[in-house]
Amino acid sequence: MTSPASETVPGAALRADGRTPDQLRPVTITRGWTQNAEGSVLVEFGNTRVLCTASFTAGVPRWKKGSGEGWVTAEYAMLPRATNERSQRESVKGKIGGRTHEISRLIGRALRAVVDVSALGENTIVLDCDVLQADGGTRTAAITGAYVALADAVAWGARHGHVTGGKQVLTDSVAAVSVGIIDGTPMLDLPYVEDVRAETDMNVVTTGSGTFVEVQGTAEHAPFDRAELDALLDLAVAGTAELTETQRAALAQEL
Amino acid sequence: MTSPASETVPGAALRADGRTPDQLRPVTITRGWTQNAEGSVLVEFGNTRVLCTASFTAGVPRWKKGSGEGWVTAEYAMLPRATNERSQRESVKGKIGGRTHEISRLIGRALRAVVDVSALGENTIVLDCDVLQADGGTRTAAITGAYVALADAVAWGARHGHVTGGKQVLTDSVAAVSVGIIDGTPMLDLPYVEDVRAETDMNVVTTGSGTFVEVQGTAEHAPFDRAELDALLDLAVAGTAELTETQRAALAQEL
Amino acid sequence: MTSPASETVPGAALRADGRTPDQLRPVTITRGWTQNAEGSVLVEFGNTRVLCTASFTAGVPRWKKGSGEGWVTAEYAMLPRATNERSQRESVKGKIGGRTHEISRLIGRALRAVVDVSALGENTIVLDCDVLQADGGTRTAAITGAYVALADAVAWGARHGHVTGGKQVLTDSVAAVSVGIIDGTPMLDLPYVEDVRAETDMNVVTTGSGTFVEVQGTAEHAPFDRAELDALLDLAVAGTAELTETQRAALAQEL
Amino acid sequence: MTSPASETVPGAALRADGRTPDQLRPVTITRGWTQNAEGSVLVEFGNTRVLCTASFTAGVPRWKKGSGEGWVTAEYAMLPRATNERSQRESVKGKIGGRTHEISRLIGRALRAVVDVSALGENTIVLDCDVLQADGGTRTAAITGAYVALADAVAWGARHGHVTGGKQVLTDSVAAVSVGIIDGTPMLDLPYVEDVRAETDMNVVTTGSGTFVEVQGTAEHAPFDRAELDALLDLAVAGTAELTETQRAALAQEL
Amino acid sequence: MTSPASETVPGAALRADGRTPDQLRPVTITRGWTQNAEGSVLVEFGNTRVLCTASFTAGVPRWKKGSGEGWVTAEYAMLPRATNERSQRESVKGKIGGRTHEISRLIGRALRAVVDVSALGENTIVLDCDVLQADGGTRTAAITGAYVALADAVAWGARHGHVTGGKQVLTDSVAAVSVGIIDGTPMLDLPYVEDVRAETDMNVVTTGSGTFVEVQGTAEHAPFDRAELDALLDLAVAGTAELTETQRAALAQEL
Amino acid sequence: MTSPASETVPGAALRADGRTPDQLRPVTITRGWTQNAEGSVLVEFGNTRVLCTASFTAGVPRWKKGSGEGWVTAEYAMLPRATNERSQRESVKGKIGGRTHEISRLIGRALRAVVDVSALGENTIVLDCDVLQADGGTRTAAITGAYVALADAVAWGARHGHVTGGKQVLTDSVAAVSVGIIDGTPMLDLPYVEDVRAETDMNVVTTGSGTFVEVQGTAEHAPFDRAELDALLDLAVAGTAELTETQRAALAQEL
Repeated sequence: MTSPASETVPGAALRADGRTPDQLRPVTITRGWTQNAEGSVLVEFGNTRVLCTASFTAGVPRWKKGSGEGWVTAEYAMLPRATNERSQRESVKGKIGGRTHEISRLIGRALRAVVDVSALGENTIVLDCDVLQADGGTRTAAITGAYVALADAVAWGARHGHVTGGKQVLTDSVAAVSVGIIDGTPMLDLPYVEDVRAETDMNVVTTGSGTFVEVQGTAEHAPFDRAELDALLDLAVAGTAELTETQRAALAQEL
Repeated sequence: MTSPASETVPGAALRADGRTPDQLRPVTITRGWTQNAEGSVLVEFGNTRVLCTASFTAGVPRWKKGSGEGWVTAEYAMLPRATNERSQRESVKGKIGGRTHEISRLIGRALRAVVDVSALGENTIVLDCDVLQADGGTRTAAITGAYVALADAVAWGARHGHVTGGKQVLTDSVAAVSVGIIDGTPMLDLPYVEDVRAETDMNVVTTGSGTFVEVQGTAEHAPFDRAELDALLDLAVAGTAELTETQRAALAQEL
Repeated sequence: MTSPASETVPGAALRADGRTPDQLRPVTITRGWTQNAEGSVLVEFGNTRVLCTASFTAGVPRWKKGSGEGWVTAEYAMLPRATNERSQRESVKGKIGGRTHEISRLIGRALRAVVDVSALGENTIVLDCDVLQADGGTRTAAITGAYVALADAVAWGARHGHVTGGKQVLTDSVAAVSVGIIDGTPMLDLPYVEDVRAETDMNVVTTGSGTFVEVQGTAEHAPFDRAELDALLDLAVAGTAELTETQRAALAQEL
Repeated sequence: MTSPASETVPGAALRADGRTPDQLRPVTITRGWTQNAEGSVLVEFGNTRVLCTASFTAGVPRWKKGSGEGWVTAEYAMLPRATNERSQRESVKGKIGGRTHEISRLIGRALRAVVDVSALGENTIVLDCDVLQADGGTRTAAITGAYVALADAVAWGARHGHVTGGKQVLTDSVAAVSVGIIDGTPMLDLPYVEDVRAETDMNVVTTGSGTFVEVQGTAEHAPFDRAELDALLDLAVAGTAELTETQRAALAQEL
Repeated sequence: MTSPASETVPGAALRADGRTPDQLRPVTITRGWTQNAEGSVLVEFGNTRVLCTASFTAGVPRWKKGSGEGWVTAEYAMLPRATNERSQRESVKGKIGGRTHEISRLIGRALRAVVDVSALGENTIVLDCDVLQADGGTRTAAITGAYVALADAVAWGARHGHVTGGKQVLTDSVAAVSVGIIDGTPMLDLPYVEDVRAETDMNVVTTGSGTFVEVQGTAEHAPFDRAELDALLDLAVAGTAELTETQRAALAQEL
Repeated sequence: MTSPASETVPGAALRADGRTPDQLRPVTITRGWTQNAEGSVLVEFGNTRVLCTASFTAGVPRWKKGSGEGWVTAEYAMLPRATNERSQRESVKGKIGGRTHEISRLIGRALRAVVDVSALGENTIVLDCDVLQADGGTRTAAITGAYVALADAVAWGARHGHVTGGKQVLTDSVAAVSVGIIDGTPMLDLPYVEDVRAETDMNVVTTGSGTFVEVQGTAEHAPFDRAELDALLDLAVAGTAELTETQRAALAQEL
């Protein structure tokens, strides 16, 4: 499912890839990309390509047992050569790096924000987001794709009689995008070449109804003021609205 | 050095500890709390108590060698019984948890935002932030205290002839505070009992001149809208301005 | 590049997927599947899908320095949900399992058997074989695909002036296939459902010229005699000959 | 609670800090230093400063279940910049060093020597001894302070109805001190500058009634004879008697 | 129990140690070498010396509980100075190397091939194979010795009433030997000096009745053809037949 | 080399193995037990059997480079089934336990007490002490045997021209023994059955000239008084004097 290209302002192509500042890269969401998982989505934001699988299992971790509630969690990782230089495998290093931990936690929180755990019942859904090719925005692509895989896994659980409460498990949808300020201009959905140059970098997660789930802004090279923050939030909200549409269109198709 | 209590509105004590929504807890910054480190600060935000030491060493990590630039990094940790229930030591588990990693990275980024690494020269400053007692806001207390320890370590480096460029190493100061929405009311500087109830939780890091270094807002129990985000940012900016004053007063004293 | 289907004997479809005992699954080798690596191949043996990337870097590990020789090594891994049940990440466990180690070593040995390390010069090529979807024969698919990625990386090294000796780095090609005895019948290229039932399981690696690089036969449920061993070797040699053709056809195409 | 200074022999100040050979450093035991733990003591031997917390929990490790007996154990650690040079965190290294292990085991054994585990019932008390500032004698200070924290935790358990046997849990008190031979002179309670110069170094743990719990003597630079061993034991026994008094005085106060 | 020397062909001593190509090194199997284990065998193939202990315990791993079946597994390791150069301990490195993993798995599989797990009942036997001195062929010596230790442990289990089914637990015996091609000549039972020079190296595990349990052939320096493979298998089968006799003779003695 | 049995007092056999309280178990020191190491000793104290190998290598650890001094260190370990119940391998657990660490450190300190590191020059000797069979007193047997292996390695270094200073590397010999109080009686050299019952347990390391290198006394079940301590020291000094003779006799033989 490919998102429709935003309309571009003629003559304003400031960006290396020809996009306007407020334009997303081409976004593709392919459901059922692998066969074993209860939800399996290949999400692409330009050259960034993330495989998101959702594994539905009956039962919950020990600390949730008897609560009547389910659990949703996520793990993010990169293949060693997803990036331009090969990075060492975390399994070989014997430990998970801080960045990996941080992104896994972010994805998990973002998804849980739209899950009614009591409606899920004592079931667990694990989202694995493995970056096959990285070109900036891997965490936001992962959230956007993982939501679709989660929706498929929830539907699988309902079809197979594991989710029986009759309530909606998903209270809303969730999508994410990165924004940043480059040479003073706020821009949407940064690829790697822009990301490394950004003075300020922000990841924004919103629900389908447009409220915020997570706002993470970082001054990479220069502190930012309130006006810049507001401009970035405006861009991001428009971007996630567009991603929400792409998610809906993808989920509307037959699997 | 204790911050002056904000003026309170009579009759409006909504909070368990008697504070108004826009009031900080009593903040104390004690310099020279231990003797071995080049900077050593005990920072207290109410019952939250963090020991921040700054270790100045000549030389930089391998990947910085020959760059002419210095390096500033941070490590955050909690004593096992800083919290109400004892947590297992990460050294015993054999690995650092995601939360610890995430906060260490946040503190390091926050401090580097006000460091001119070329003025520092090829020297390294490591900030160790060890939570002795935890009552909410440990990461923001750590950033606020670590800045003061960093300032002492930079001064030490200058006094001992290790920092020789003649340029200012610190381009600004940095302070941090948590804010959150509780029962619909935005509140400043959450202790543990408020933190667990917050619908939305935000950590904000600003410079002494009032620009943003980091904004991390998370919907814990309910997504938040733009108006709520704005209210939280207003509270936080006022809070960090007050903390900036407390830092200045602490640094103005003889050590 | 898809291998031509072997001719099937009518009426003899003993296997769940309709193949004759001496028939490979459909094999596809897609070069350039990702963009960052010097060689990147998606190899498919039926539903088994492995991404093989080759990373070419100047220089060799310390113990090879000054030898004038290069180094080729491999790392194999599975995505958590490549299989029917999710397996825990080895990075999360903090250690690599015995099976992973064993297969990584096998792939590395197989490829080195056709590499003239002195012709390669002091360069290193790392082959990452990540199983995206597993349906039996992942290690043999990995070897078969990794050879093609290796060939592309060697060509890249030559084109970019890193391989300058004028000698052929690759002395031959290498391909691999699994064979096994099921209900007394030797069969070629086992998918998962056959693999778990096999009395004897053998992985055979041959060069393009038909000599053996590795023969690993294991009695899973019953010891095997010399006649069975011979039958399995015959099947395997025919299978790898076919795979060699598929490799050649893939490499003959423009990238 | 500060120990009374020993009487000093005029004109005999052999030591850098002006003490006589048989004199302890100023010793302070502060109960209730943090609020969360069932016992929390800051113990200071001169500049050595150790935070000892006792965590009381109902239940015992699996191998003790059903025995009717409790368990007391200890963990010792140093903050990275407790020492003059920053040491790497053991959590970052991913493993606990031999010295840490050894001292943790020593503290645990020393405390268990005065605990009647059947009187404790199936409860566990964990003593965390974290060195905030190190200046020699950290393990002996830790034992001396941990005993007081343990006593407070036992009292807490009794007050809250977790310890119900009616028998005394603590059969005696326990205190520890280091002694050593420096330039041929046996000396009591060595700070770091003396410790590194000591020919022989001994840690002695005694009960309040003056019997030995642990004697660990090590020839650091020269073997020692029986007369030297005897002189060191005499010094140590006098020192721990004085520490026992300081413990009693501290415990006699209202908390 | 020492194996009878094979008859040698006069004038044909091609090998450094005077053996003919088809001759084993002197093989010794000493039962009861240590006293604590249920089976304890020191096996020697020339200078290769492996201590194989079998530990019999009631109960099985969790994933086998209630199956009515037992479990047999193996762990292989080398003492640091078993080899000519000291190797670092895997316990110090904090992880097990790929070679160790691979050999442990091989030994376990080889032994399980002759165990009727239902006859064993819900008991576990762990074989520890620790190489005290290494001179080539450590894995094949380990399998050969471990079988004898296993037989002793099974007998112990029967004598002590833990194995009660009345069926034979051991369905056959198992022995192993290495073979290789050196300067074009296939040779049996390679010591270290030959092993490093071998073009092809093969480990063969057979049952006492002469069928194959495992065939692992690797082209170390040159691929091998079918005729070479056949010659190696012939040598190996003769070698393991001789080892089977040595095992029988050892087990025939009073312990 | 077996130590002569002490003379026994008729009718006084208090101990399960018929020894008098002041009698060592039969002690055997076998040099050259394995061939690869520069020193290799199998030491037996009754059923306790420890393989001590000394590895001599040119060069020192980084922190000693350029000092002109050598380094001697030790690593202690137990085979999994050295004991009556199998213990898990520390390599499998992925970490070294506290007991192992503590004993390794003790052995290293004991040996360094008799080494003139400047006479050794920039060479390293690593002592590996692997317990093949454990029956109490493994650490003291290890020290006693390791000294002999060390002496052989030093002699090897001198013979091969690596130790050239002309000074004696070994300034004395070192031996160790355990003593303990059982049912009120001080006893020498405790086997496992006595060790677990001992009220007090002490390990004593002395030089060949009878001075102390290490005294480690622990009240296992009851604190001990000065008279008991003295009695234990008397027993231990007599025991190590006897062990010193056994070491001398072993080293006096041709290897």
